[in-house]
Amino acid sequence: MSKKTRIVVVGAGFGGVKVVRELAKDKSLDITIVDRRNFHLFQPLLYQLATSLLSTDEIAYPIRSFFRHNKNVDLFMAKLRGLDKERKVVITNHGEIPYDYLVLAAGATTNFFGMESVEEHSFPMKTLQEALHIRNHVIHMFERANKIEHNEEERRRMLSFVVVGGGPTGVELAGSLAEVINLIMKDEYHNLSPDEISVKLVEATGGLLPMMPPDLQQETVRVLEKKGIDVMLNTQVAGCDKNSLILKDGRVIPTNTVIWAAGVKAVPIISKLGFACDRAGRVIVNEKLQVEGERDIFAIGDCASFCHGTERPLATVAPVATQGGAVAARNIKRLIAGDENLETFHYKDQGAMATIGRTEAVVNMNGTKMKGFIAWVVWMFVHLLRLAGAHTNTTVLLKWTWNLLSGTRLGRIITNMQYDESRELRPMPLDPEEKG
Amino acid sequence: MSKKTRIVVVGAGFGGVKVVRELAKDKSLDITIVDRRNFHLFQPLLYQLATSLLSTDEIAYPIRSFFRHNKNVDLFMAKLRGLDKERKVVITNHGEIPYDYLVLAAGATTNFFGMESVEEHSFPMKTLQEALHIRNHVIHMFERANKIEHNEEERRRMLSFVVVGGGPTGVELAGSLAEVINLIMKDEYHNLSPDEISVKLVEATGGLLPMMPPDLQQETVRVLEKKGIDVMLNTQVAGCDKNSLILKDGRVIPTNTVIWAAGVKAVPIISKLGFACDRAGRVIVNEKLQVEGERDIFAIGDCASFCHGTERPLATVAPVATQGGAVAARNIKRLIAGDENLETFHYKDQGAMATIGRTEAVVNMNGTKMKGFIAWVVWMFVHLLRLAGAHTNTTVLLKWTWNLLSGTRLGRIITNMQYDESRELRPMPLDPEEKG
Repeated sequence: MSKKTRIVVVGAGFGGVKVVRELAKDKSLDITIVDRRNFHLFQPLLYQLATSLLSTDEIAYPIRSFFRHNKNVDLFMAKLRGLDKERKVVITNHGEIPYDYLVLAAGATTNFFGMESVEEHSFPMKTLQEALHIRNHVIHMFERANKIEHNEEERRRMLSFVVVGGGPTGVELAGSLAEVINLIMKDEYHNLSPDEISVKLVEATGGLLPMMPPDLQQETVRVLEKKGIDVMLNTQVAGCDKNSLILKDGRVIPTNTVIWAAGVKAVPIISKLGFACDRAGRVIVNEKLQVEGERDIFAIGDCASFCHGTERPLATVAPVATQGGAVAARNIKRLIAGDENLETFHYKDQGAMATIGRTEAVVNMNGTKMKGFIAWVVWMFVHLLRLAGAHTNTTVLLKWTWNLLSGTRLGRIITNMQYDESRELRPMPLDPEEKG
Repeated sequence: MSKKTRIVVVGAGFGGVKVVRELAKDKSLDITIVDRRNFHLFQPLLYQLATSLLSTDEIAYPIRSFFRHNKNVDLFMAKLRGLDKERKVVITNHGEIPYDYLVLAAGATTNFFGMESVEEHSFPMKTLQEALHIRNHVIHMFERANKIEHNEEERRRMLSFVVVGGGPTGVELAGSLAEVINLIMKDEYHNLSPDEISVKLVEATGGLLPMMPPDLQQETVRVLEKKGIDVMLNTQVAGCDKNSLILKDGRVIPTNTVIWAAGVKAVPIISKLGFACDRAGRVIVNEKLQVEGERDIFAIGDCASFCHGTERPLATVAPVATQGGAVAARNIKRLIAGDENLETFHYKDQGAMATIGRTEAVVNMNGTKMKGFIAWVVWMFVHLLRLAGAHTNTTVLLKWTWNLLSGTRLGRIITNMQYDESRELRPMPLDPEEKG
């Protein structure tokens, strides 16, 4: 029996799973996925977990389930700590893993652009835990304000929710948050006056959804404002403390909830591997998706900086990762076969879409622009089709239908509460290493 | 406007929700539910959360949703700290709440019978967090054993799962655990040999499910053994450490997973309120469900000790709480109306049932005994009917159907991992106050 070729894929996001899917059929390969989680996360719907519409089980899918029938694929649940290129081993907190070919698909984390006060006091939303943390915190603020807090000013601050960042994540989250508040919270918290509650969306530039044409950008602002959201364009953030968001122009917004959706960067370990990286910490790859100067190491998705034929590196979106994963897998197969003539990665942009709450979305695909209900239906089906697993699709479709018909949101459960030093019940703090 | 009568109900379990439902229609009442959670928990299905079949949202239901249309009902999310009978106020960690009538329905917690080593090292399963903790821990043990642990003895210990307690909780959990292992884990962990995995059910007495007739008890043992579970009757526990369960006869079972389902007692605060309590810390009530010697304070469900006409206090099961809640509500209405002639509580025992995994159950209702598939179908419909919310029923039915047809379990997601001091990834420890 000849020795098997060892492939190590770091990260089981859209890119990593695609690479492994493409390679798994070849039984002469021994494939190890390294991930500190045991699940693949469907990040585009994370905001629906944060706003109580979906459950963890619907947007997180066990990695092992993808590869149940591929005995040559295994998961090594551990955290990447480094790389030894000489010995060709990946270093993790649970030991080393030897590789012949390595794919870095470790993904992105929140970019606070060096603002420590924002990092300390705001709520990012890149992981499952962070989304649950937002869910718990928002409900907790309502509970506190409704019965426990008698000072009106404090109550208004508790009920002031600020989302920073006008990209798809910020827009979708703000829209969904306004909806859960309008349709449910205002009804269930009998002690609160609706005018004490506010949702703001803060964006540094002059428009929302930069990848959309101007008319759809304006449509987005219109729909959000119709939902009662205060859309603050051309508004830059200077910092944050426990009780307020501080703007560059000196204004202070009293709030206990700043959700930070203003930027991403590669996970920090990537820039510590000794490779050339861009400003966002993403490793620079050549046209074949190899890490600059390396034959056997590829990088794809949010942690890779691909800048060939475009002005800026490709965006950190799922299709870039998936398409890159397919090309990286084919190039690895060529190298194994002794063919050094590798395929060049050409990204096919399929357009963009964003939902702005129930029944409203904007879609811009292959030159076709859509808005309103029809755009929302298109958005819904595209996302259902891409969700992992037929079972998950069904419960998600059910929940979306109920939500459409009656505003139902089943997930309003505060799951991770604990008592802090002052013996107050609070959502559990996040693991500081969670972000890394 | 005359002053409203203030009712405070501590606990939103089966008993508490029933009381409030019965009283909510009367708009002259001002009802406050005190609970440290914002959800009602369907405890009978907790073991299905622990074994990855259901999601949190399906067995936990927001308390406010029950009373959305009852403006005279509100939730005070706080933890009971004490009682001032003179001033008629309930004391919580978020301040005091005045009452005219008080209902204690605070429920039960795990009883370790004074064994500190068991309390420290075993996994109880009375709360949502504890069930999630078991889920996370079991999956984590498989991940560790599969790739990281090379010592066979250590691996066997990691893959040895011991459930202590042969009541419904222990039996249902052991059966469900054996199933997820047989149908999924053995398939997905390619590095493990099935004979390294074991599930044991330890029971101190000579039989399982003490409320069942002997033939159904024997049937239960037979079905569990068929699933590969080692049923250890007449086996008493002496203690526990990080790596083993120690039996009274001196035997030591190497394991990292002791799930403790061997007993319950009232939540600790109940015995600190100054009332007479039984050995399990439950407050002793008279035939009208009033706390002994009190006119305005009632106690129902798992935290009440009702011992009239029966040899032992009524069992800590949902129907006792629900039926008690209805009687307590009616008695409060009488007292408010000036009628001191209160209704006596007569518990109608509806029988017992337990599921022993997919397609197998035992049922003993009104003299009718059932087992096997038909019993399982009966069990399923009874539980579906009692679940809160039509939406929840639907997703639960869907998940049960998928599980029946193909063993599907969507919830195998490790959600609450963090790094401990040794920088090892572990399930997050539980809040020590969680149990209280």
